[in-house]
Amino acid sequence: MSPVKVFGSAAFTNVARVLVCLEEVGAEYEVVEVDFHDMEHKGPEHLARNPFGQVPAFQDGDLMLFQSRAISRYVLRKYRTPDDGTNLLRDGDLQGSALVDAWLDVEALQYEPAVHAVFVQHRVVPALGGTPDEKAIGENVEKLRKVLEVYEARLGERRYLAGDAVSLADLSHFPYTHYFMGMPYAAVFDAFPRVRAWWQDLVARPAVRKVAAMMDGRSG
Amino acid sequence: MSPVKVFGSAAFTNVARVLVCLEEVGAEYEVVEVDFHDMEHKGPEHLARNPFGQVPAFQDGDLMLFQSRAISRYVLRKYRTPDDGTNLLRDGDLQGSALVDAWLDVEALQYEPAVHAVFVQHRVVPALGGTPDEKAIGENVEKLRKVLEVYEARLGERRYLAGDAVSLADLSHFPYTHYFMGMPYAAVFDAFPRVRAWWQDLVARPAVRKVAAMMDGRSG
Repeated sequence: MSPVKVFGSAAFTNVARVLVCLEEVGAEYEVVEVDFHDMEHKGPEHLARNPFGQVPAFQDGDLMLFQSRAISRYVLRKYRTPDDGTNLLRDGDLQGSALVDAWLDVEALQYEPAVHAVFVQHRVVPALGGTPDEKAIGENVEKLRKVLEVYEARLGERRYLAGDAVSLADLSHFPYTHYFMGMPYAAVFDAFPRVRAWWQDLVARPAVRKVAAMMDGRSG
Repeated sequence: MSPVKVFGSAAFTNVARVLVCLEEVGAEYEVVEVDFHDMEHKGPEHLARNPFGQVPAFQDGDLMLFQSRAISRYVLRKYRTPDDGTNLLRDGDLQGSALVDAWLDVEALQYEPAVHAVFVQHRVVPALGGTPDEKAIGENVEKLRKVLEVYEARLGERRYLAGDAVSLADLSHFPYTHYFMGMPYAAVFDAFPRVRAWWQDLVARPAVRKVAAMMDGRSG
């Protein structure tokens, strides 16, 4: 039995973020499904794990944790294999870790809100029988375009967002971008060749490919 | 001349967050105003500091940084006085730092969006000659109430959100809550006595009092 449990399925982007980190460091873990149809996420057992009734929740022995980026930081701090050469948080490097923090906040507070809003209109609203709000989609694709302009300039200076090696700041973009690339609005990336090359780089990583398959129900 | 520069004025909540951290650790710093009326924030000099044209931007010698929570982490990591007893990030404590990360993400992704939306409708929209959207205000006060319910339960187990000592996760709530407490909607806090006690505790801190005065134009 693995001491590490992730509550929630890989199809949720916030769960997939944590799974990518676990796969990157080669940690053993167990995925425990939470039954949303049965309202299990709002039941007392799950609320004890995540007081907001969301996924993921995370357990490592005595420690219960929630919020996907906080869990990701914890996983990378505790389980990183020292000999793999990749310090995905730049722990112990004052300036390097500050840049990872900055670009991770950009992902959480500037990139994800735009992509999330498009996802909700394009996928969630029709699934609930509604009509997508095309104006909201257009506004958020435009917000995303402005963020990608900044990324394109940044990736001209550095191979990855926080420096010349991959970090959590890059990997954290994966789950929502994976879905976005399957939508008609993905064309907004066409004008940004360095961003596209960065994305190809990310999806070539074994950990990312494995979690992509889990998200799409092809394995896991 | 101080090596540490904060670009942007204390009246901006994201700037105030950084200033509280600098004051908590007693670091020397200089505040450099950015002239928004003159569009200085979208000029090449400021964009080199913050590619999104926002405040704060931050300089410490060679390092340029942006995103207020990333700057706050950096300040607390670099300048914390070891003998003051307060490790506001729980650096070096795997579980403790994970809890600070989790509750800081709650502040950024659950608390602030609700308070921000109310602030925009109540303060920004009328200042631009518009009429506040009362429905949006009501929805976001309700979102805030649900977050405060979780806080009230949490503060029954622990004196502060991430444990028994204050952390960045608590302090990060200060700037927006300072403004919110001056609005008629502040009554939503009345039902949560532990949250009110926690707030009184925070605003009694000398660093917080000093930055509150700077935000209100009473000094600084």
